[in-house]
Amino acid sequence: MSRFLSAKYKKLVPYTPGEQPKDMQYVKLNTNESPFPPSKKAQEMAAETAKKLQLYSDPECKILRDKLAETFGVKPTQVIATNGSDEILNFAFMAYCDENTPAAFADITYGFYPVFADVNNVPYELIPLKEDFSINITDYFNLGKTIFIANPNAPTGMALSKNQIAEILKNNPDNIVVIDEAYVDFGAESCVDLVKEFDNLLVTQTFSKSRSMAGARLGFGIASEAVISDLNTIRYSTNPYNVNSMTLAAGYGVLCDEEYTKANCKKIAENREWFVSELKELGYEVLPSLANFVFAKNERLGGRETYLKLKEKGILVRQFEKERISQYLRITIGTKEQLKTLLSALKEILEETK
Amino acid sequence: MSRFLSAKYKKLVPYTPGEQPKDMQYVKLNTNESPFPPSKKAQEMAAETAKKLQLYSDPECKILRDKLAETFGVKPTQVIATNGSDEILNFAFMAYCDENTPAAFADITYGFYPVFADVNNVPYELIPLKEDFSINITDYFNLGKTIFIANPNAPTGMALSKNQIAEILKNNPDNIVVIDEAYVDFGAESCVDLVKEFDNLLVTQTFSKSRSMAGARLGFGIASEAVISDLNTIRYSTNPYNVNSMTLAAGYGVLCDEEYTKANCKKIAENREWFVSELKELGYEVLPSLANFVFAKNERLGGRETYLKLKEKGILVRQFEKERISQYLRITIGTKEQLKTLLSALKEILEETK
Repeated sequence: MSRFLSAKYKKLVPYTPGEQPKDMQYVKLNTNESPFPPSKKAQEMAAETAKKLQLYSDPECKILRDKLAETFGVKPTQVIATNGSDEILNFAFMAYCDENTPAAFADITYGFYPVFADVNNVPYELIPLKEDFSINITDYFNLGKTIFIANPNAPTGMALSKNQIAEILKNNPDNIVVIDEAYVDFGAESCVDLVKEFDNLLVTQTFSKSRSMAGARLGFGIASEAVISDLNTIRYSTNPYNVNSMTLAAGYGVLCDEEYTKANCKKIAENREWFVSELKELGYEVLPSLANFVFAKNERLGGRETYLKLKEKGILVRQFEKERISQYLRITIGTKEQLKTLLSALKEILEETK
Repeated sequence: MSRFLSAKYKKLVPYTPGEQPKDMQYVKLNTNESPFPPSKKAQEMAAETAKKLQLYSDPECKILRDKLAETFGVKPTQVIATNGSDEILNFAFMAYCDENTPAAFADITYGFYPVFADVNNVPYELIPLKEDFSINITDYFNLGKTIFIANPNAPTGMALSKNQIAEILKNNPDNIVVIDEAYVDFGAESCVDLVKEFDNLLVTQTFSKSRSMAGARLGFGIASEAVISDLNTIRYSTNPYNVNSMTLAAGYGVLCDEEYTKANCKKIAENREWFVSELKELGYEVLPSLANFVFAKNERLGGRETYLKLKEKGILVRQFEKERISQYLRITIGTKEQLKTLLSALKEILEETK
C-alpha cells in the first residue's frame, strides 16, 4: 500500500480468484471453466477481427446486443454487455446500493458480493442459507434492500425455481433484485422472461461457463429499458469501450451456434450426474447441483487437507476457508477423463487415511 | 433512468465518446485511431488464443507485464495492465481522490477527467491553460490535490518536457501526479523513467494509438511498487480478470515488434508535419501538436458548421461545444490519402463560404 491511498480503501480486502499456478500442468477443476473449446464460428470471427484492431470497438455493442435480444426475446435496449459479469455486478452495486439502500445476499454465495459492497462503501446484510444450504425465500421478502441471488447458487450449485424468484420479486416491489445466472444453462430455470413482468428485476449472465468463453470476458444483463439505461450511465462514466472488438465478435459467433452450446451443456450435466454417483460411492455427501460444479464433503477427510493432497497430485479443486463450508470441495465438472483422474486420486487419499 | 437509481448518480452526465455512425462508410478522422493495422504477430497470437477461450485469462497478466517491464526498464511489480487506459484512470480517481484530496486538471484536456471525478463523487479544480493553450507548470505546484495531466494534452496535442514534469513532481511531494501518456509516442518525451526518482508519479499509456490496438482495449500504468499495489487492490475488488486473453496475447505480440510501431509513428509524424503546412496554406491556425491529431481553426469558418459540412461529405472529425475551443476541429492524422480527401473538402467549404 502506498502512503497516498485514500483512507476509504485502506482496509479493503480484495476478492481472491481461483489460483492459476504456472509451475506445472494441472488437471484444472477449480474455476468452473468449460472443458470444451469455444464454437468454431466464435474462433473464426475473433481471428478475423484481430486484423483490424486499430479501430475502436463499438461502445454500443450493437451486433451482440441485437443477437442477445433476438435470442432472449427482448428489445436490444433491454440488454447491456460488459467486461465479464463481474463488471455488471459491480455496476449494480454502484447504481442500486448506497447508505440508504444496503445490499442483501446469502451468507454462502459468490464471494465477490461482499467485496463489491466494500469497494462501493455499501453496507450489507448476510442472510443465512438454511441448514441444508437451500434458500428460504421468505427471508428475502420486503427487506428494503437491493438483493443479489446467484441462481444456481455458488458454491452450492443449488437453484430456486422461476416461481420462487417471482415471489421474491413480488415481495420487493420497490427494490432491485439481481439474479446472477452465471450457471443457469446446466439445468436450472432462467428467469429472464420475468423482466416483462417485473421492472425491479435485473438478470445477469456470462459467456464464461456454458459458452466456453471465460478468457474472452463477456457478461451481459437483461432488464427493463430504464434499468439498462441506469447501467449505461455508469458504463459511459467509467469505461464506454468496455468490451473489446474480438470478444464482441466471438460472442456473436457463439450465439449463432446455439446447438453447440446446448450439446456441451448436456454433456456436462450428464458427466455431473455420473460423477455425483461415483462420489457418493466413495462416501461423499454431495449437494444437489444444477451447475457445472458440485459441492461435496467426506466425513473422513478434511476439506483443506484433501485440497492440498489433490494439488500435490496435480489436480486443482477449490476449497473455501469459511467456517460453514470449510469441509467441502467445489469441483468443476470437466471431461469424464479429468473426473476419473480425480476419483482415482480421492480413492488413494481415502486409502492412505484409513 | 429507473426509479431505483441511487441519488448519487441522478445528475451524472456520462462521457460522450466520438461518434461511430453506422449509416455509411466515413473517412474516419475523429477518434485518433491509427490508420495502420496491428502488427502481424499481434494478429496471429490473438487468433491462436481464440482457440482456447474456455480458460480464464491470467489475472496477473504475467506475460504482458514481464514484457512491458523489459521494454520500459522497470520491475514487473511496477506495471499494471487494464481494460484500456480509461480503466486505470478511473482506478486512479478511486484510489487517490476523495473529499479530502480533490483532483486537479486543466480546463481544456481529456473530457473524461471530470466524468471520472463525478462518478467517484470527487471534487475537482479546473486549472485554465494559458491563452496559447500551453500549461503554466507553476499553476500545478503544491496544490494538495491529485493532479491529472495528459501529455501531450488532448485535444491540443501540446506537450510538456520531462524536465517540466519533474518540476511538477518535485513540487507535489505528498500527492500523486498522473501523467496520461496516451499520445506520447508521436514525438513527445515520456517521463516513465522518472518513476525511479518519484514515488508520487503514475504514468499511464495505452495500446490504442501508437500500437494500433484501440479495438483490443489495453492500457497500462507504470509507477512505484506501492502505487501499483494500490491499483491492484482496486482491480481485484472490481474486476480481477479485467484483460481478456486475446488482448493479452495481442499486446505481447505488439511489444515483440517494436520496429513496426516505431515506423508507424514516424509515418504519422511525417504526415502530421505535411498536413499542418497544408492546413496553414488554407488559412488555418494550428496548435503545435506532438500527437497523432491536430487542433486547428479557421477565422472564416465556424467549428460546428465545418464539422457538419464535413460529415455531409462523408468525413468525420471531432468538434467540442466547449466555449474556449468550439471554433476548433480536432483532426486525426490518418493516411496521406485520407488527409488529402479532407483538405479537398475544406477547400470546397472555403470556396462555398467566400
